[in-house]
Amino acid sequence: MTAADSGPARPPAELTEIAARCEARLGEILDAERRQWSELDPSLDEPLGDLADMVMSGGKRIRPAYCRWGWLLGGGDPEPGPGDGSLDAGCALEILHAFALAHDDMMDGSLTRRGEPTVWRKFAERHRQRSWHGENRRFGDAAAVLVGDMAMVLADRTLGEVTAATRAVWNGLRTELNMGQYLDMVGSAQQHPTADGARRIIEHKTARYTVVRPLQLGAALAGSPELAGPLERHGLPVGLAFQLRDDVLGAFGDPRATGKPVGDDLREGKPTLLVAVAQAAASPAQRRVLDAVGSEMDNQTVEQIQQVLVDTGALAAVNDEIEDLLRQALHALEALPDVPAVKEALAATAHFVAERQT
Amino acid sequence: MTAADSGPARPPAELTEIAARCEARLGEILDAERRQWSELDPSLDEPLGDLADMVMSGGKRIRPAYCRWGWLLGGGDPEPGPGDGSLDAGCALEILHAFALAHDDMMDGSLTRRGEPTVWRKFAERHRQRSWHGENRRFGDAAAVLVGDMAMVLADRTLGEVTAATRAVWNGLRTELNMGQYLDMVGSAQQHPTADGARRIIEHKTARYTVVRPLQLGAALAGSPELAGPLERHGLPVGLAFQLRDDVLGAFGDPRATGKPVGDDLREGKPTLLVAVAQAAASPAQRRVLDAVGSEMDNQTVEQIQQVLVDTGALAAVNDEIEDLLRQALHALEALPDVPAVKEALAATAHFVAERQT
Repeated sequence: MTAADSGPARPPAELTEIAARCEARLGEILDAERRQWSELDPSLDEPLGDLADMVMSGGKRIRPAYCRWGWLLGGGDPEPGPGDGSLDAGCALEILHAFALAHDDMMDGSLTRRGEPTVWRKFAERHRQRSWHGENRRFGDAAAVLVGDMAMVLADRTLGEVTAATRAVWNGLRTELNMGQYLDMVGSAQQHPTADGARRIIEHKTARYTVVRPLQLGAALAGSPELAGPLERHGLPVGLAFQLRDDVLGAFGDPRATGKPVGDDLREGKPTLLVAVAQAAASPAQRRVLDAVGSEMDNQTVEQIQQVLVDTGALAAVNDEIEDLLRQALHALEALPDVPAVKEALAATAHFVAERQT
Repeated sequence: MTAADSGPARPPAELTEIAARCEARLGEILDAERRQWSELDPSLDEPLGDLADMVMSGGKRIRPAYCRWGWLLGGGDPEPGPGDGSLDAGCALEILHAFALAHDDMMDGSLTRRGEPTVWRKFAERHRQRSWHGENRRFGDAAAVLVGDMAMVLADRTLGEVTAATRAVWNGLRTELNMGQYLDMVGSAQQHPTADGARRIIEHKTARYTVVRPLQLGAALAGSPELAGPLERHGLPVGLAFQLRDDVLGAFGDPRATGKPVGDDLREGKPTLLVAVAQAAASPAQRRVLDAVGSEMDNQTVEQIQQVLVDTGALAAVNDEIEDLLRQALHALEALPDVPAVKEALAATAHFVAERQT
């Protein structure tokens, strides 16, 4: 791939290189952990193996990429290799993400993750096959909690020795993630999201966690914590646009492109801004249609809800906001240090997250 | 209380003073956290309030005490106040313990902790009262996982900026705790503990976590990480004796003194060394009696199992081992720096944990 490949709705080519380096290092870290603890007790091979599988199977490595871009903007050594202080931090972000996923999947009772059975389900199945004492499901849940806990500590250890300024960014990221998760869970249970509430969840659980904090982490590692403000002014709108686009795809996305059933988020009752805006603007009849959000429903009901999201103007309002956020994010690039390759990558990624179809 | 009050089966008087200072500081830390996040979103007051209640309600503060004793042995400033580098670390240990308890109670489905409903149960009950969407129990479980996750990160932030040597001790403690928890869970599910397996669980989940690492943490904070070895030689036998005594009380303890139903551990199927030793030595008839371990049983069955634990020699073997461990622990004090008040406190605590009736 060359830089010319990156168009408006495609992630930048560097992402592939950053992901490859990150995966090589993650392999080393996870192997070492697994070897050390399996030697103490062979039972520990299974949870650490599941953790390794989950981390290695995964995703676009977008957080390590933002961390590397923050590092480069902060004046860090661009040479890949031992001088790249952003590599271990990127790996720490990926391992931390596995913590969040292991706990999240257990809390949501999700059956698959990236095409594989989720951790709680693997352990519930082993428990059943081995005829162990107790309930399969509770054992699976408990094991997933502990695999997540192991990941949380390993992530921290992978970050390693850093300055107080860097650790403050890392601690902010972890705290905001937990608070965002909690607000998301309560929001789903309450089922009547307010627009403000939905924005707070997006800001903490997605925008700060996925974009702002990884950028700031890289910059702080490079000795430029003072870039925190300018990076936030780019990262926050990108992260918000990412989640709003995700919400639109979760309600209207083509199942062939997203790989998820149509209207998946509507069935789950995710407290999205899209639904909050529609609820605020809905007539009594439209509100009755929206009451089905968060329950099992047939495709016809999904279509009725989609119609309400259109008729109330919620879809148009969210799409307008995504466009506006993209403009803000691109504008904020001007205040960042002049590293053209990184600015191009950030612009391409911003376009991608705002305009993607999957 | 005066020093003269501390006898062989009573914890040392300093424990009360250390606990009081620790609790005052914990109150400040938890209030600040709760205030900050409730301001962002009032929903966050509840989980952080539960966390504060759990931390403040609790226990003898034995880990902060060991941390302080390690600090003093390592040459740290004995004056209580801003110069006491072990105070925040002690608080971090207590908040980390709340993480472990929140997750543990959820995994075990425990109903009460220190006389209060457990976190998962409080949230399940709120969910029911508020007629929120979804299952009460699953919501309670998820909330308890997140309260634990919040505690884990807050514990880390409370430890603050420390040297690499100190952080290595802290990371060791957290990793060993998770690994020990996992081994304990698998051991309970498998129901046929081996003596070696039981020892590994005790070592990681109790001895290192409660005694060795807190002592080493205090010494490292005082700039004396080289005391790690001598402190381990005292702390490991004390921690092992503590757990073995706990196992004996869990199987034979007087419910009026322990506050738990007689034979509680036997019903839970805890993979204790006591049961492992009995199983290894049991005749076929005795083994059939032991098969009831890990199930609901009446008091008569508890008595039959107790008889087998006596007849196989398991109780005597474990009691001999406790005595032997106490001797080792007291002997190991000789190699520690000469701070008489601390050595007296360590000796009194060792006697207490090995000989206590509750």
